[in-house]
Amino acid sequence: MGRTSDAKARLIEAAMELIYARGYSAVGVQEICAQAGVNKGSFYHFFPSKQALVLTVIDAYAQYVQQMWEEAMLAVPSPLERMLRVFEIAYEAHRTLVDACGQMRGCPIGNLVLELSNQDETIRQKLWEVCRGWADMVERMLREAAASGELHVRDIDTTAQSVIAYFEGVLLLAKAQNDPLVVKQLAQGVKYLLETHRRDHLDKSQ
Amino acid sequence: MGRTSDAKARLIEAAMELIYARGYSAVGVQEICAQAGVNKGSFYHFFPSKQALVLTVIDAYAQYVQQMWEEAMLAVPSPLERMLRVFEIAYEAHRTLVDACGQMRGCPIGNLVLELSNQDETIRQKLWEVCRGWADMVERMLREAAASGELHVRDIDTTAQSVIAYFEGVLLLAKAQNDPLVVKQLAQGVKYLLETHRRDHLDKSQ
Repeated sequence: MGRTSDAKARLIEAAMELIYARGYSAVGVQEICAQAGVNKGSFYHFFPSKQALVLTVIDAYAQYVQQMWEEAMLAVPSPLERMLRVFEIAYEAHRTLVDACGQMRGCPIGNLVLELSNQDETIRQKLWEVCRGWADMVERMLREAAASGELHVRDIDTTAQSVIAYFEGVLLLAKAQNDPLVVKQLAQGVKYLLETHRRDHLDKSQ
Repeated sequence: MGRTSDAKARLIEAAMELIYARGYSAVGVQEICAQAGVNKGSFYHFFPSKQALVLTVIDAYAQYVQQMWEEAMLAVPSPLERMLRVFEIAYEAHRTLVDACGQMRGCPIGNLVLELSNQDETIRQKLWEVCRGWADMVERMLREAAASGELHVRDIDTTAQSVIAYFEGVLLLAKAQNDPLVVKQLAQGVKYLLETHRRDHLDKSQ
């Protein structure tokens, strides 16, 4: 038997995998314990409920996705190129996952938003906080682009949310087709969402 | 006890309501039967499995959403205005639902795409067929707009899928916030996805 801290980490890791593969309702505590090699008594020592576990799992998913976004944000100076880079990184990550498990699993946060928002208000709020955090990252990028004169965005909050909506929708359509290539094919759309605010383009079309 | 055909219709109606509210995995056959007032033996007379029932339910959801899209498509001549009208109709439908049940439930098809695509290949293919049908509707609209000279779309299939992705993503973010107003607030984004192809705009910015 591993140390206490290992048991908790193994429970979180097993839950992350099982819930990502099959959703929250379809996975039981017993199955999570079995995959983690931890007994049910220990589970309830660490997590008073399955809800408590999934809140921790959401944090772990959020951290994983956040790293992906930050990597893209650092990659290139232009906001348009950065957003395209987010889609490229997402495509690469999902292609690697599909090669390993044969399934396009979509966004772990988006999956839970649609499955659980109506079932548990605490979980819904937590999931929205995560999406809000991503929108904040896009907002910061848009403010930078406005400051440098590259974009002229009238409603930064709405535009940032549009970008997140598009990202989530693209992953949904890719999951519907079980094909990560959809993420690559639809990436250009995000450029159109932002390009409409490009200063040179506005100058020409006004 | 109602007639046989009534029992089947009641089962479908109960399943549509329960699955829309809580998802597929969280709802059992017993609960569907109880809400429909039909015994379990009769359930298996009509549907060999829960999978068979959900395939019928998906058809019913698809028909409901299709009607909404067709209404919008007939409403106005300009494709940009038509797409905005789709979002407006969706906003109104969801606001009415939220007023009645207090919950923003999202797209019934998108919900099942994220919950079930990895769990059941037959269901995933069925759900993709439905999304593909919506994309075909948008494609027809884009071809019309190209013929009339309003839009100049290079890749009609990709653009149509972008529109569907955006629509699904907006409903996802609205569900995350439990707020139908998000659908109205983010509607403009679809205009940007299409406006980039506007002929006058292209003429000016090239």
